Amino acid sequence: MSTSVFALPVSLALHLLTSAAPASPSPATAPVKPAPASAVKGLSAAQREAAGRLVGPALTEGHAYARLAELTDGVGPRLSGSDSAEAAVQWALRSFKADGVKAWKEPVKVPHWVRGEERGEIVASERTRGLPLSLMALGGSAPTPPEGLTAEVVEVDSMEALAALGDRVKGRIVFFNHTMSEAADYGRFAGMRSRGPAAAAKQGAVAALVRSLATASLRTPHTGATRFDDGGPRVPAAAVSVEDALTLHRMLEGGTVKVRLVLGCSELPDADSSNVVAEVRGREKPDEVVLLGAHLDSWDVGTGAHDDGAGVVMVMEAARLIAKLPQAPRRTVRVVLFMNEENGLRGGRAYAEAHAKELPKHVAALEMDAGGGPPLGVSLHAGPGGEALLRPWLAPLDGLGAGRFMHGHATGADISPMEPARVPFVGVRVDSSRYFDVHHSMADTLDKVDPRDLSRSTAAVAWVAYALAEAPGLLARPTGPEDDGPPPKKK
Amino acid sequence: MSTSVFALPVSLALHLLTSAAPASPSPATAPVKPAPASAVKGLSAAQREAAGRLVGPALTEGHAYARLAELTDGVGPRLSGSDSAEAAVQWALRSFKADGVKAWKEPVKVPHWVRGEERGEIVASERTRGLPLSLMALGGSAPTPPEGLTAEVVEVDSMEALAALGDRVKGRIVFFNHTMSEAADYGRFAGMRSRGPAAAAKQGAVAALVRSLATASLRTPHTGATRFDDGGPRVPAAAVSVEDALTLHRMLEGGTVKVRLVLGCSELPDADSSNVVAEVRGREKPDEVVLLGAHLDSWDVGTGAHDDGAGVVMVMEAARLIAKLPQAPRRTVRVVLFMNEENGLRGGRAYAEAHAKELPKHVAALEMDAGGGPPLGVSLHAGPGGEALLRPWLAPLDGLGAGRFMHGHATGADISPMEPARVPFVGVRVDSSRYFDVHHSMADTLDKVDPRDLSRSTAAVAWVAYALAEAPGLLARPTGPEDDGPPPKKK
Repeated sequence: MSTSVFALPVSLALHLLTSAAPASPSPATAPVKPAPASAVKGLSAAQREAAGRLVGPALTEGHAYARLAELTDGVGPRLSGSDSAEAAVQWALRSFKADGVKAWKEPVKVPHWVRGEERGEIVASERTRGLPLSLMALGGSAPTPPEGLTAEVVEVDSMEALAALGDRVKGRIVFFNHTMSEAADYGRFAGMRSRGPAAAAKQGAVAALVRSLATASLRTPHTGATRFDDGGPRVPAAAVSVEDALTLHRMLEGGTVKVRLVLGCSELPDADSSNVVAEVRGREKPDEVVLLGAHLDSWDVGTGAHDDGAGVVMVMEAARLIAKLPQAPRRTVRVVLFMNEENGLRGGRAYAEAHAKELPKHVAALEMDAGGGPPLGVSLHAGPGGEALLRPWLAPLDGLGAGRFMHGHATGADISPMEPARVPFVGVRVDSSRYFDVHHSMADTLDKVDPRDLSRSTAAVAWVAYALAEAPGLLARPTGPEDDGPPPKKK
Repeated sequence: MSTSVFALPVSLALHLLTSAAPASPSPATAPVKPAPASAVKGLSAAQREAAGRLVGPALTEGHAYARLAELTDGVGPRLSGSDSAEAAVQWALRSFKADGVKAWKEPVKVPHWVRGEERGEIVASERTRGLPLSLMALGGSAPTPPEGLTAEVVEVDSMEALAALGDRVKGRIVFFNHTMSEAADYGRFAGMRSRGPAAAAKQGAVAALVRSLATASLRTPHTGATRFDDGGPRVPAAAVSVEDALTLHRMLEGGTVKVRLVLGCSELPDADSSNVVAEVRGREKPDEVVLLGAHLDSWDVGTGAHDDGAGVVMVMEAARLIAKLPQAPRRTVRVVLFMNEENGLRGGRAYAEAHAKELPKHVAALEMDAGGGPPLGVSLHAGPGGEALLRPWLAPLDGLGAGRFMHGHATGADISPMEPARVPFVGVRVDSSRYFDVHHSMADTLDKVDPRDLSRSTAAVAWVAYALAEAPGLLARPTGPEDDGPPPKKK
């Protein structure tokens, strides 16, 4: 089914696409009225052809999925600082070369955290003979002493609840429990993982356990980054599986619970690593850059298929297909495979710093980092008129189910350091409803990515990238961090 | 909803229940015609009252679920021979005592297999940097040498495919792959786990890997028993997760794959253990026994909540509720909590042997060992007329969704040693469609059992047990192993 749809949007495109942004953009309101007839112009012959040449192969050739297999099965997990992360860099350079896309690496100094032995148990008491915990150190965790540590557990369900306990958590293991049940809950609760252990440590806790941020569980813990302040106290911190969180909660309802924890992780000196940058130079305005980002690193468990192997192969494939067009788009399409999104964002920061002078000419940045699900539509973080400019270009994606303009802030961790430079952000939204079933867990493996979904999102990314690089008009730069294109205020 | 339904079946029962089995049973055919009017008699007042006194508390008191929490959280995993298995025996004896049900233990000598270190990896090659495997030794596996073993993998999809390879598996690791996708596939493929490694060993293989028998996976391996012939070769054997099986398969499509395997398991001398037997003596025919079975042991991973904690608490609760009736049923209801169902069936064999002389007076045996799902109906393995006898007694279960007579062979591993004695088997079937998501895995924990489902199945077991012990008529004994009650052959 997927392979037959692309003929439709291309023909629709003949009627619907605009070849130019309105000279004075009409205010973007929701719902948007039909564009005036003058705005509906046909694409040029080259542009029409490009739609077919991008969407068609993306849906039919299976190239992105084959690449994903190379990255996941071949390279495997690739945490920053590891040999495998370096192997991923080499793989990306080789792959771009094979695709005929010019690529190079740019230096990034990354944290080098290494997982070690890890285990824990609810200690035997009058209520239990003891129960092993299925857990996984959080990235950035301090180790326990080699013999482990044992302490009473105190449960909290929010950062506020922790703060309210003050120094009553002293000498305890703080257990961050929550009620994540759907993907949309991630943002609400992720702070307990990223900032909870540091806060608990400041209040005197000896360790932290965090319920995995997950939407499904078969006793599978989900890791993720936790951050400690420079010079602040660091404690061992681990994610427990949802089941183990439920067990801890049940046990705590009945009285005191002690947990024994052994974490052998270690923080090595920062390591030398790289972003991989590749580009297809624009035919008219090569200094204007449409940036497509994804992150090459992954957690050290699973093989990072959804997070973010899928994003990596989508943007690589977009570049490959755009490079094969008979005529390059007006502007430069630049792919950046960022290193260290997961536990430091050093790649995103390094890029923004190294390219600071070019950022005023970065006309759009688009990051794919929400898994390999099917595409849903396009979102924006730009100044006024962005929607009106983009909307007509979405028609070729209607047949993929991705032709919608979705209100809401387009963003991306790795591109966020470009926000102060007011680079417009564009999002190709994918269905992430099952993303957190596997995110940051051992279960994030190739089999979880549906090749049909991946090919559709790849097609959407390729076309949106082309549209951004080809449309005569430019997205207005956002005026503030929350600007997703409302009408300009009247003076 | 569950708590309001029991009033309905009790009133329905007034119309529908028969108090006696037909003197000459009508042939059981499918579909069965309505019973003749003469067969529809009311229950006695005591029997009518019993329906309410069994179903009502089972649905409303939450006693079975509370017991399940004690067994899973309190005792935890309880593999035969372990201290925890003995703790489970003591827990059961204490619990029966608290319930006012006479209980004792009966000796069983059990295998004492102990899991050790276990890990494996696909060895680095030109196609991969190496990938860790998520695996778990099968119960009964031999250990690898302490340093592990490394060998090429050969994949087979059936016992026949293995046999066809002959000695070409010599020195190899045989990888048993299959396509289990739903619960009904278990029987088709379980032989690869239970008999595959022994067969591979006889053909010269050095180890075996078996795709987990699972209907869902988040990289969670599922263990289970594998059997080697006495005096035959024994090899290390492990279950890999579904994801790892898929990875091995992909890798093998591309060429040679080597796996390194470290299994530190060990087989200790047989250990002393026990079945726990409890009973409510019959008021008229105490020597006629209705046996309710479940198994007290579990695998050493997870906490055996569905397998078979759920069965254990259902049959215990049935006994507790029957013991509280103002009048005991005609016959004795005997609960047997078998030891060692999982890796030896020694408890089932020991019971059949120790009670051989009583088996002719075992009028029915019912084993609950398919998880804590909701009840679907009742099945039978008995001589002619069984369905006609039982069907009218099922009406009180209509409101629970369990009032159906289900064709198909009632059975149970622990009661199977009573089959030669032609003990009639009765099944209370539960919905097991999601049972193999967690079966034999770390994920078989309390949270997976829905208290509402458990209470409904408990109610069904209690009522069916009562019906079997109270009905004036007896199930005819089966005439052969496949006899589920067809009409007798004409001479």
